[in-house]
Amino acid sequence: MADFLTKETILDTAEQVLRRFGPEKTSVVDVARALNVSHGTIYRHFSSKAALREAVAERWLHSISEPLKADFAQGGSSAERLRLWFEMLINIKHTLVQKDPELFSMYTTLVQESGEVVHDHIEELIKQIIPIIEEGIANNEFKSSDATKTATGVFLATARFHHPALAMEWASPSINQEFDIVWNVILSGIVK
Amino acid sequence: MADFLTKETILDTAEQVLRRFGPEKTSVVDVARALNVSHGTIYRHFSSKAALREAVAERWLHSISEPLKADFAQGGSSAERLRLWFEMLINIKHTLVQKDPELFSMYTTLVQESGEVVHDHIEELIKQIIPIIEEGIANNEFKSSDATKTATGVFLATARFHHPALAMEWASPSINQEFDIVWNVILSGIVK
Repeated sequence: MADFLTKETILDTAEQVLRRFGPEKTSVVDVARALNVSHGTIYRHFSSKAALREAVAERWLHSISEPLKADFAQGGSSAERLRLWFEMLINIKHTLVQKDPELFSMYTTLVQESGEVVHDHIEELIKQIIPIIEEGIANNEFKSSDATKTATGVFLATARFHHPALAMEWASPSINQEFDIVWNVILSGIVK
Repeated sequence: MADFLTKETILDTAEQVLRRFGPEKTSVVDVARALNVSHGTIYRHFSSKAALREAVAERWLHSISEPLKADFAQGGSSAERLRLWFEMLINIKHTLVQKDPELFSMYTTLVQESGEVVHDHIEELIKQIIPIIEEGIANNEFKSSDATKTATGVFLATARFHHPALAMEWASPSINQEFDIVWNVILSGIVK
């Protein structure tokens, strides 16, 4: 088996083992044992336990950010495109929790311990909405003079709906209504 | 001692016991033992373990919401008063984490399990900012037509800075800058 061992296979197995034992108790030896290889074989692909855990976290975050890259909602206004991007992000996350709450919770713990990986993920997400805001500024729909700041502001102001540490509240029956209320404030602000 | 046992004394002791054993493992008997009384004595004040836990959670949340009632920032604009209210809320929470992270974490767990108590607490906080927004509408500073919705929107859009489940991120060196960015979006929105 060791000869055909790919990074993907190791990550698949690591995910299962992490889920069974929890991020605190999983060792490289546990993953090697589940694959029936020596831990040296794992270390040829991942230099440390931390590197393996980070790779698992990274792959998961990538599965969230990748589908959002699609150039959807062409033809709509910039405000509509921006809202659709957030609805898709929120939908991806809420679906992950609903489908497998335990796995989501394991990943939330894992990801919170991988500071740099999370930072890159958030940067990647914000980078995806910057062009939508720039387009809105160019077509005179948005008033922002700094698209990066605006993108960051909108991302942070919607944290309640996509930050994994708040997942236990997403099942609330009023969550969609709350998103509408927040989105209204984000779009038009409160001052005259 | 039992004769002089007040609710406050029981709550003080319950807090210490909850902290030592954790919310999952603490029983009414543990609290009674720490006070050197029978568990019947505790039940005379609190009808159940759940009622005792909720009372502890409620007292803690009250210690957060009570100081915010002060009529501060008189004379400022409504926008300034609103921002000051949020700065005070955030300051109270961040100080609690810094002073005693373990106690804060215990309370976060406890509070998350007391759904109704949290609901009342959030309603109480939102109620405090409604008059500031109403005043802003009356003096033509704010454009909202529904002060309750606006108050809810602003409260939810700032969750990143005051939701206890996100406390691990409050020590970030960029947290104040992030608040400024979000506040700017909340005040003036993004559309022209």
